[in-house]
Amino acid sequence: MMSREEGRKEQTRGKQSIQFSHAVHILSGASIVGKKEGEGPLGKYFDVVGEEDGLFGCQCWEEAESVLQKEAVTMAIRKAKLEKWEIRTIYAGDLLAQTIASSFGIIGFDIPVYGLYGACATMGEALSLSSMAVAAGYGNYVVAVTSSHYGSAEKEFRFPLGYGNQRPLSASWTVTGSGACILGRSGGKARITGITTGKIIDYGLKDSLNMGACMAPAACDTIYQNLMDFNRMPGDYDKIITGDLGEVGQKILFDLLREKGFDIEKQHIDCGMKIYDKEKQDTHAGGSGCGCSAVTFVSYVLPKIETGEWKRVLFVPTGALLSKVSYNEGQSVPGIAQAVVVEHC
Amino acid sequence: MMSREEGRKEQTRGKQSIQFSHAVHILSGASIVGKKEGEGPLGKYFDVVGEEDGLFGCQCWEEAESVLQKEAVTMAIRKAKLEKWEIRTIYAGDLLAQTIASSFGIIGFDIPVYGLYGACATMGEALSLSSMAVAAGYGNYVVAVTSSHYGSAEKEFRFPLGYGNQRPLSASWTVTGSGACILGRSGGKARITGITTGKIIDYGLKDSLNMGACMAPAACDTIYQNLMDFNRMPGDYDKIITGDLGEVGQKILFDLLREKGFDIEKQHIDCGMKIYDKEKQDTHAGGSGCGCSAVTFVSYVLPKIETGEWKRVLFVPTGALLSKVSYNEGQSVPGIAQAVVVEHC
Repeated sequence: MMSREEGRKEQTRGKQSIQFSHAVHILSGASIVGKKEGEGPLGKYFDVVGEEDGLFGCQCWEEAESVLQKEAVTMAIRKAKLEKWEIRTIYAGDLLAQTIASSFGIIGFDIPVYGLYGACATMGEALSLSSMAVAAGYGNYVVAVTSSHYGSAEKEFRFPLGYGNQRPLSASWTVTGSGACILGRSGGKARITGITTGKIIDYGLKDSLNMGACMAPAACDTIYQNLMDFNRMPGDYDKIITGDLGEVGQKILFDLLREKGFDIEKQHIDCGMKIYDKEKQDTHAGGSGCGCSAVTFVSYVLPKIETGEWKRVLFVPTGALLSKVSYNEGQSVPGIAQAVVVEHC
Repeated sequence: MMSREEGRKEQTRGKQSIQFSHAVHILSGASIVGKKEGEGPLGKYFDVVGEEDGLFGCQCWEEAESVLQKEAVTMAIRKAKLEKWEIRTIYAGDLLAQTIASSFGIIGFDIPVYGLYGACATMGEALSLSSMAVAAGYGNYVVAVTSSHYGSAEKEFRFPLGYGNQRPLSASWTVTGSGACILGRSGGKARITGITTGKIIDYGLKDSLNMGACMAPAACDTIYQNLMDFNRMPGDYDKIITGDLGEVGQKILFDLLREKGFDIEKQHIDCGMKIYDKEKQDTHAGGSGCGCSAVTFVSYVLPKIETGEWKRVLFVPTGALLSKVSYNEGQSVPGIAQAVVVEHC
């Protein structure tokens, strides 16, 4: 008979990482975005592109964002050739207060739910927790989904759109979109082999219109720890893909990692810098929101891993931890980054 | 050699539950509450009781709530005779927009974090996800922590306190407090043997001052599913403990479960009804908030399990999924309930 401790495999790596003894397979990914995202450089990759008004047939932006999650999950389940009753759990999150986009988006599925909040890093958190569950045998199929919406996010964090405030060049543009993945024990051409859980990193920055700078130290910390824990060099990844650092955050990330002895310029992609055409679309530092990394991952990154163009990728969604209350009360904007290792199979 | 699928044990039970092949031990629990909670019937059980102003030395309620989480986690780690670097991950959540009480509360620990949102059911979610992690071998020690604060919650969800609005008798009183648990692979006198993940249940109620009625259908659904999945009767539990249904919600829960053939009146306790003296403390339907179930669990329930007075308990924190935006936009208030089975050992 196995002893109790033998039966429980040690899968922790280093200080903050897990290497799954059974990799978790990504069976499908699906995305739905707004018109602006559809007109950007990644437009052709998304499954559904909405109309000009961004309302997706609803009366308000919050309801529209819920529709995005509902559609993304529905499409991802269909693409995996599953029925909704086969899904064991949904791991869902968004940026709104009390994550209402998720609650009202997935209410109709009749599937057990864990609600998450990790700011714009939430897709990394959702993929981490859902792959931990599948790897441990807590269900055959689970869903990871996040969303954001330009209208609801500006209202939630900064100013209502009707106020017409001027945006500094360091500001990012919240992506209207939702991305969902189905994870399972086998199948598909991509698998999650490990994760690195992020810490909250605070450099004391207080500018909610310069989120890239707030998040870059957290991205640096998680990427550095991933390389340490797995004993890898940046070149061991075909791509290291951050969520929404934008141009300002990217420069800071490169500098911070160089100080720690790593140069990731060759491997680095930022979802926020990929999703819009900066010159033509007037989006300043780039895209942001937990829909940004989610739709870019499921529709642009995942297919390249599935075809084998990229063999191993480090996906690191990045989040800025603030609310309008904490901001107005003079608190800093700490960052967090949640990393997932995805490999071709 | 073991085949791949043999290596991964099936731990799912029925439709929504997990029975851990290795139970997860609760090594310690710690609580800190406000003055009003300290004056209530459970006052003597809490580790720390604050001063009249509810500010815990801070300038505002949000900061005070962060201090509650910091103190609860610090005490729980100390009680388990651990150092903070031995903690692998913190699973934390609260009720505020973008869960800022958690972010700023645990920022100083330098421990990896997953942020959660499940309304007042968050302690159930935190205990579920953290026990799933420990059972799977994703770390030796993890923390589950949640908090709420009367001042910050009223401002977040209803009216600022200074407005002095009249409260209907169905209204609950948000508990000022934070409770934290350390989970590990062995030790302690209580263990988590299984969980039941909740679905979002919406009966279409829209009254944010009658949360008990909004949450009762979700409590019914999760308790019923737990009994089905584990093939148990209510009498198989010494206590079935909901989070914060209050008097109104309790009546509805009893009625709904009777319709499904179960009578839990003998076993049922509600943390919200336990924490205040209704006659003397003017708290109407009872206590609420994700601090309510957390502090009641760690300081009142857990010791009774540890001594063996209660052998097996079903702990079912209940949450109402709303934000002031969803409420003002006319959305209903759906509920969710996350259940954890805790046994003496």
